[in-house]
Amino acid sequence: MPVLVMKFGGTSVANLDRIRRAAKRVGVEVAKGYDVIVIVSAMSGRTNELVGWVDETSPLYDAREYDAVVSSGENVTAGLMALTLQEMDVPARSWQGWQVPLKTNSAHSQARIEEIPPENIRAKFAEGMKVAVVAGFQGISPEGRITTLGRGGSDTTAVAFAAAFEAERCDIYTDVDGVYTTDPRICDKARKLDKIAFEEMLELASLGAKVLQTRSVELAMRYKVKLRVLSSFEEQSDEAGTLVCDEEEIMESNVVAGVAYSRDEAKLTVQSVADRPGIAATIFTTLSDAGVNVDMIVQDISEEGRTDMTFSCPTDQVARAEQALLAIKEKGELNYAELLADRNVAKVSVVGIGMRSQSGVAAKMFKVLSDEGINIKVITTSEIKISVLIDRKYMELAVQALHDAFELHKTG
Amino acid sequence: MPVLVMKFGGTSVANLDRIRRAAKRVGVEVAKGYDVIVIVSAMSGRTNELVGWVDETSPLYDAREYDAVVSSGENVTAGLMALTLQEMDVPARSWQGWQVPLKTNSAHSQARIEEIPPENIRAKFAEGMKVAVVAGFQGISPEGRITTLGRGGSDTTAVAFAAAFEAERCDIYTDVDGVYTTDPRICDKARKLDKIAFEEMLELASLGAKVLQTRSVELAMRYKVKLRVLSSFEEQSDEAGTLVCDEEEIMESNVVAGVAYSRDEAKLTVQSVADRPGIAATIFTTLSDAGVNVDMIVQDISEEGRTDMTFSCPTDQVARAEQALLAIKEKGELNYAELLADRNVAKVSVVGIGMRSQSGVAAKMFKVLSDEGINIKVITTSEIKISVLIDRKYMELAVQALHDAFELHKTG
Repeated sequence: MPVLVMKFGGTSVANLDRIRRAAKRVGVEVAKGYDVIVIVSAMSGRTNELVGWVDETSPLYDAREYDAVVSSGENVTAGLMALTLQEMDVPARSWQGWQVPLKTNSAHSQARIEEIPPENIRAKFAEGMKVAVVAGFQGISPEGRITTLGRGGSDTTAVAFAAAFEAERCDIYTDVDGVYTTDPRICDKARKLDKIAFEEMLELASLGAKVLQTRSVELAMRYKVKLRVLSSFEEQSDEAGTLVCDEEEIMESNVVAGVAYSRDEAKLTVQSVADRPGIAATIFTTLSDAGVNVDMIVQDISEEGRTDMTFSCPTDQVARAEQALLAIKEKGELNYAELLADRNVAKVSVVGIGMRSQSGVAAKMFKVLSDEGINIKVITTSEIKISVLIDRKYMELAVQALHDAFELHKTG
Repeated sequence: MPVLVMKFGGTSVANLDRIRRAAKRVGVEVAKGYDVIVIVSAMSGRTNELVGWVDETSPLYDAREYDAVVSSGENVTAGLMALTLQEMDVPARSWQGWQVPLKTNSAHSQARIEEIPPENIRAKFAEGMKVAVVAGFQGISPEGRITTLGRGGSDTTAVAFAAAFEAERCDIYTDVDGVYTTDPRICDKARKLDKIAFEEMLELASLGAKVLQTRSVELAMRYKVKLRVLSSFEEQSDEAGTLVCDEEEIMESNVVAGVAYSRDEAKLTVQSVADRPGIAATIFTTLSDAGVNVDMIVQDISEEGRTDMTFSCPTDQVARAEQALLAIKEKGELNYAELLADRNVAKVSVVGIGMRSQSGVAAKMFKVLSDEGINIKVITTSEIKISVLIDRKYMELAVQALHDAFELHKTG
């Protein structure tokens, strides 16, 4: 029997009615002849409640106990989903992470999956079970303790199961109906993509289009797992949602797949530092130690042996960055004139694997922004992405203008 | 190190404040030099919520999934308790049933404990851990699935751990401060007992004094586990609460230890059945198959080959009993004249191991009731208990009169 993995997020299993609705979708796939592995999240709100209790009990908690507490939400959903399927006469049973076993390393609360031996579940499929409902987000450490996988852990669980069982596809049911060319809330011409390449999805995810967690896309790319994102709130056909797949499977496509943005960025400039080896390392090691997530980095052209170092980070980390850089200045480890912080910037990016073979995308992007009177403060590029920092007030305008210019409302 | 087992019920861990309070009690015992095993229930209300979801999802649920869902409440408390202890600098960790492992049979939702290998927890004690916080009410079946132990399962878990670890004592923290000579709500002279024998506790528990679940007392009696019942809402000394122990440890005691009652009883009489072998078996097998919990049974003196069979059961099972007996009458398997049901009776019992060596207790009980004008409808006796069915309206009066007559307000 071909295996299908289906993952339902928190809002898709938020109450018994929604669990029933999700179970019906599972029933449809079973009727098509699949052996189905269902990965479930906790009912929405549950995990936050449990995390709240842990935080209140122990601000610097033992992550092993955090995991033991927080993983319980998924176990509840798994049992309820199995019962719901049984009520529909679909042979099903639940599995907690340790029962599979989903083996992870010991990095509690952000564990990495190491192995999913498929034998136990395969044996049950062979006995006639049609659905294995697996509690997502959790596993077991070499020490026999419960681990959790961190943010987006249920997506990652789903992809890992799809890889381990060589599933035909991994369907991620969520509260959006697919991946869009940009955020429909700020651009009404945004179009749902039928297909998107793993690499593009990775860039979009890390740029703030939070449909799928980066880790799960990375994993899918590595193991060539066909990922489909679709809504659990609509009737679904086989072609619904967005398929995240290998670029070879995408016959025709636009040069640019989507426009992504990140609203709460800040731009910091360390003015007039010595332009010599080791300075960048000093600055960015300091920031990393202080827990600042530096994104874009630009170094100005040197003048008279001194240079400006500019970088971006989330707005809420600016204070931390300032503090850390001031500290090393006072200790004499770094000499600079001023530290300028601009908290009113946003990042806008165009992403597309087509860029690799087509030149002029960056030029076009800069012209579009210039035509709108938008000044570009920082630019970074990768093989399939161009990102710019601009004044936050122009963010929506920039997204809309780029979406139009690259004709993303049209199918490629 | 001597081992102490401490069990906290649902109301004792109902929220983070109460968990903190319970943890402080644990800290006191650790400071005395004990290695402590703490058994926790789910936060009160949680288990009911989970059971409600299961019932709504699947009225005839798969008990294996029921167990997987319902056991999650205890896991949450265990983790939170471990974290709270760690915050107090007490080395602690949580254990779920399968991690210990607490091995049970496969009778899901009412599993029996088969073995608790102490090695894993002992090894941690040897490494310096002072408290093992164990999720109560749950274990693991030979098939590797989660089981629950049924009603009062956390008490049973606690006693089983005390037996497996040869604990010095098993303290059951609850919302009452001990075992009373009778229910203080209906007799203001009720006195808290310092000690009570296992056998007496068993009779009191099964008679409706629901401080401890019968199974846990049976287990404690078999393994000679000293059980102490005490309140988690009061400051405690070493002599607080009530010690349930072997009768040899009770030096002086009243002939009668307590007066118990059960309010919602019904008396049923099957009139004029043939007085021949097999009739009682037919009646009570039928009732048992129908799920009726028959308590007292009396057979009248036979007249002309026919007799009346009288029994009692909980009020809410009368309809079921009537239906079952009518069915076998119609099928011709049992011939009787009438089935009379009296739903307005209550059971009152006096219990005491002293009865074994002292005669006249029954006579005294009957005289007390007679002096109050209370008619006795059915009598049953055991070695250490005399029970009567009376009109429900006299129940409080009977309890008070018997409490007075046997001078239970005085220490024995």
